Amino acid sequence: MTLPMVMPTAGLPDAVTICEVGPRDGLQNEATTVPAHVKVEFIRRLLDTGLTVVEATSFVRPEWVPQLADAEEVAGSLAALDRAGVRFPVLVPNLRGLDRAMALGLTDIAVFGSATETFARRNLNRGLEESYAMFAPLVSRANDAGMRVRAYLSMCFGDPWEGEVPIDQVVTAGRRLLDLGCGELSLGDTIGVGTPGHATRLIEAFDAAGVAPSRLAVHFHDTYGQALANTLAAMRCGVTVVDASAGGLGGCPYAESATGNLATEDLVWMLDGLGIRSGVDLGALVAVSSWMAERLGRPSPSRVVQALAGKEKA
Amino acid sequence: MTLPMVMPTAGLPDAVTICEVGPRDGLQNEATTVPAHVKVEFIRRLLDTGLTVVEATSFVRPEWVPQLADAEEVAGSLAALDRAGVRFPVLVPNLRGLDRAMALGLTDIAVFGSATETFARRNLNRGLEESYAMFAPLVSRANDAGMRVRAYLSMCFGDPWEGEVPIDQVVTAGRRLLDLGCGELSLGDTIGVGTPGHATRLIEAFDAAGVAPSRLAVHFHDTYGQALANTLAAMRCGVTVVDASAGGLGGCPYAESATGNLATEDLVWMLDGLGIRSGVDLGALVAVSSWMAERLGRPSPSRVVQALAGKEKA
Repeated sequence: MTLPMVMPTAGLPDAVTICEVGPRDGLQNEATTVPAHVKVEFIRRLLDTGLTVVEATSFVRPEWVPQLADAEEVAGSLAALDRAGVRFPVLVPNLRGLDRAMALGLTDIAVFGSATETFARRNLNRGLEESYAMFAPLVSRANDAGMRVRAYLSMCFGDPWEGEVPIDQVVTAGRRLLDLGCGELSLGDTIGVGTPGHATRLIEAFDAAGVAPSRLAVHFHDTYGQALANTLAAMRCGVTVVDASAGGLGGCPYAESATGNLATEDLVWMLDGLGIRSGVDLGALVAVSSWMAERLGRPSPSRVVQALAGKEKA
Repeated sequence: MTLPMVMPTAGLPDAVTICEVGPRDGLQNEATTVPAHVKVEFIRRLLDTGLTVVEATSFVRPEWVPQLADAEEVAGSLAALDRAGVRFPVLVPNLRGLDRAMALGLTDIAVFGSATETFARRNLNRGLEESYAMFAPLVSRANDAGMRVRAYLSMCFGDPWEGEVPIDQVVTAGRRLLDLGCGELSLGDTIGVGTPGHATRLIEAFDAAGVAPSRLAVHFHDTYGQALANTLAAMRCGVTVVDASAGGLGGCPYAESATGNLATEDLVWMLDGLGIRSGVDLGALVAVSSWMAERLGRPSPSRVVQALAGKEKA
């Protein structure tokens, strides 16, 4: 298999943890609904590639997101996949969701916050202050139970309704979530408009406000092709947790609403070339994404998967 | 139209010159052959977006590349498009090609070298030393005539037959071309395997060998999704000339041999966000690439074109 030459460069971390979001964030945004047993098999195969953090599902109300109606079934199968050091964060929107996660013995949850008032109202059906009030008892109870809590912050680089989102506003919203007791904050460029300088400024602003890069993750979408360059800039600032979606699941690039996640394969190619350890076997990951692309009945939007899957056939 | 927020970051240039290669490198590698008058109209529209360097055509033998059989017709139309400060480099493989370019009064040419012996034999039908012997009188005569000569160097980051290409070998081959009298050297990642650390090391090695970044251009392909991140790394090293192809012309991402060029729109989005001047109007460029995509009968592989063309329709 073709591989990049290993060429480390100064000013970057030695190792990065990939938070694989394909099974939840990815599949939730695909047109094809995948059966629960395929999702579980997908997660099992992803773990076999060396991934150690896999976002598994979300305990939202099934009538909101039909693709997630099988959350109990998927989450209930995770125990059988468990291996040392692996984490399966699941999204919980409220106390009811936390109850469901705790009933299944899960140890990692994530809450889904917003950097803008408009997206909070549209996505969470309540304003920012109300959302913090909703998250507060949830995070507190999860921490008391010894669970790990990750916070997503959406629309950090722009918002389709509000337009530009000031950096100060993002830092304020992110700090509120961390102050509730969340351990990690994932900065989401939900609409993919961010560029490397913007990523740098945002991370520096968090640092200046007392939130070190070690508490941050980055979550870029490739809507405008910027996701990998932005990730490079974020790593240069000291961020070592990167969200990505196997095969770029979560939005076909030819769809009008294209909002695909950064493809894990494209990320791993860059990390391998930079000599940054991720623990992931790229060839194995390409095989998993090719397998899932067949299940979805469409080619993967990941450039690496396209190039290598093509070569295997040639 | 959606635009990135302008967020400059330290250590990058204030301005970049884009060498637009869509009309030649791009269209040459498309399945559909475009008539000469459409190519000329494409070039005219590209100039209207603010681009100042547009690779127009190539004087290879028509039996080698049928898409370029109209080189005389396209090149003969450039004078009518001429405006202050605009350059139209054309590829000339040999003295016969130079004669054709000079007969049309062209002022900018490019020669096409290789970093590897195997690709030289396959692409130029002669070994490296023979290729230098062929280029020497050509470059000399062009310089004597006051023409500007750009040199392309292919396979700088890897070669499909030779595999890894040592950096020293690339520097040696590049210096040979510059020593012949070429004014600018474009480092080509023809198979798209390069990563940002590799780009950094290569440019630093040229600098250490006496070739300043100001004499270099970079030419990345997005085969593995790395083109924009590599360009960011190259700019950080001081490179200010970047080759790109409008709409990502030159290889459909879903084709098995996918080797698309960096899309000019994806590059301009990043440059705009970084506050780096290119002189290009992004919205106008998206409109031109959408127009050309209709002529080719397929969607553009550029993420920016996909996202913005979709939004215009929505």
